[in-house]
Amino acid sequence: MEVGIVGLGLIGGSLGLDLRDRGIRVLGVSRQSSTCEKALERGIVDEASQDFALLRTAEVVFICTPIGLILPILEQVIPYLEKATVVTDVGSVKSPIVQQCTPLWRNFVGGHPMAGTAEQGIEAAQRDLFVGNSYVFTPIKETPLFALRKVEEVARSIGAVIEVCPPDIHDQAVAWISHLPVFISASLVDACMGEQEAIILQWAQRFASSGFRDTSRVGGGNPQLGVMMAQYNRGAILRSLQQYRQSLDQFITYIEQENWETLEQLLKATQQVRNRFLE
Amino acid sequence: MEVGIVGLGLIGGSLGLDLRDRGIRVLGVSRQSSTCEKALERGIVDEASQDFALLRTAEVVFICTPIGLILPILEQVIPYLEKATVVTDVGSVKSPIVQQCTPLWRNFVGGHPMAGTAEQGIEAAQRDLFVGNSYVFTPIKETPLFALRKVEEVARSIGAVIEVCPPDIHDQAVAWISHLPVFISASLVDACMGEQEAIILQWAQRFASSGFRDTSRVGGGNPQLGVMMAQYNRGAILRSLQQYRQSLDQFITYIEQENWETLEQLLKATQQVRNRFLE
Repeated sequence: MEVGIVGLGLIGGSLGLDLRDRGIRVLGVSRQSSTCEKALERGIVDEASQDFALLRTAEVVFICTPIGLILPILEQVIPYLEKATVVTDVGSVKSPIVQQCTPLWRNFVGGHPMAGTAEQGIEAAQRDLFVGNSYVFTPIKETPLFALRKVEEVARSIGAVIEVCPPDIHDQAVAWISHLPVFISASLVDACMGEQEAIILQWAQRFASSGFRDTSRVGGGNPQLGVMMAQYNRGAILRSLQQYRQSLDQFITYIEQENWETLEQLLKATQQVRNRFLE
Repeated sequence: MEVGIVGLGLIGGSLGLDLRDRGIRVLGVSRQSSTCEKALERGIVDEASQDFALLRTAEVVFICTPIGLILPILEQVIPYLEKATVVTDVGSVKSPIVQQCTPLWRNFVGGHPMAGTAEQGIEAAQRDLFVGNSYVFTPIKETPLFALRKVEEVARSIGAVIEVCPPDIHDQAVAWISHLPVFISASLVDACMGEQEAIILQWAQRFASSGFRDTSRVGGGNPQLGVMMAQYNRGAILRSLQQYRQSLDQFITYIEQENWETLEQLLKATQQVRNRFLE
């Protein structure tokens, strides 16, 4: 089998390493010649090119670019593809992608490998990034079953746990557990910046340790990625943010009212529910 | 030197292990005889008792109980102490403690070792818990310098980094970086519980990984501790929560207005500021 990968960053590069380890021939396309060279050097691809024509013989093509580029890349790739070629993407929002791409390419399957590191780019590519992590596919009724089976086969071969979920359900679910955390975490840092007394801010910076580090971590991620999440998953994120604001107001009210008993009940409930999320 | 420790949990127990390693004689007091036995078995103390009379010969006494017990314990301990004995506590809120304890015992110094683990109790006690971590002392103008120097000496001997800061500044600083995170993190879990569509909630639980885990971690901590923070540091926490709510509303507004440029600037700023906190 030959697999094409467009976009040789963390996800595309890691995918290439794993697929080649399993004897699959990998064809890599990047806009930058330097990335093509690095991909060949590191053994991420068998062939690399800036030209989409390289993908002619690919049975499956993974578009591993930022969300905003998935549709334009698909449009540019289509002229070179065999009719039976299956195309998938790795974007973290699925409804708009699937809605836009399916009419253009019948054998398109939306995908979202839930794997990552704090690092980006081809330098961050690593073996076994997907092992044991969820890889979600979001077929719709127009999606051919053979296309879904094909991408599932590839994802399973790299050790991922396959999940199949409707795109809108996926988007609201990741709004809760992945996108909402980004904005509440960034708000923590922004709120601290709002401290007007310099001496308090200095000590806060000096005292900040694991609690602050963990709670602010995802808010300190790639700003462009944060904006793209908000653009592509705006409705679901706003829905989660409004609910979050109500929860926050509830905590504020209990503390204002010194309603310690109810506050303790609420903290006990969140402690239990959190465990259910992380079982 | 002999050091007394009242409360042989994670902090008191770890302190005992380190002090004995350094040749200091440790006298431990616990309400529970089973804890006294464990402390002797594990070599956390040289002597253990349920009776405060054990502390007669101590040069320094550490009160390592939950915040709500510090004042009542001090009252019970005082009859047994030599006049020159220095008493300190390890509570995470300092103003109310220092205000209440200083009039009762002149040689009282408020303290806050910024060290911990997810575990609690004597079983969690470990060597070198304090090494490289901040240990804050919060003297006020009434605090004798010799008393401050004495507790600094003990804290330095166990490898902690000594910080000296006024109690009210300490309390507002920890409200930002330690207490506020608890409530915004607990609100995340509470908000997710508010999802009315069961299928979305199921998928959210299934997809939850490192981003959710880290952002919700401190909110899933000990509920009693969360309530005590709120009770003892109510003013500072409410001040931080109000500012946080404004920051959150700003993010919501930019996303509602599709003001992507400003959203990106804000995320860039928070990314940079976070690094300053964690340098």
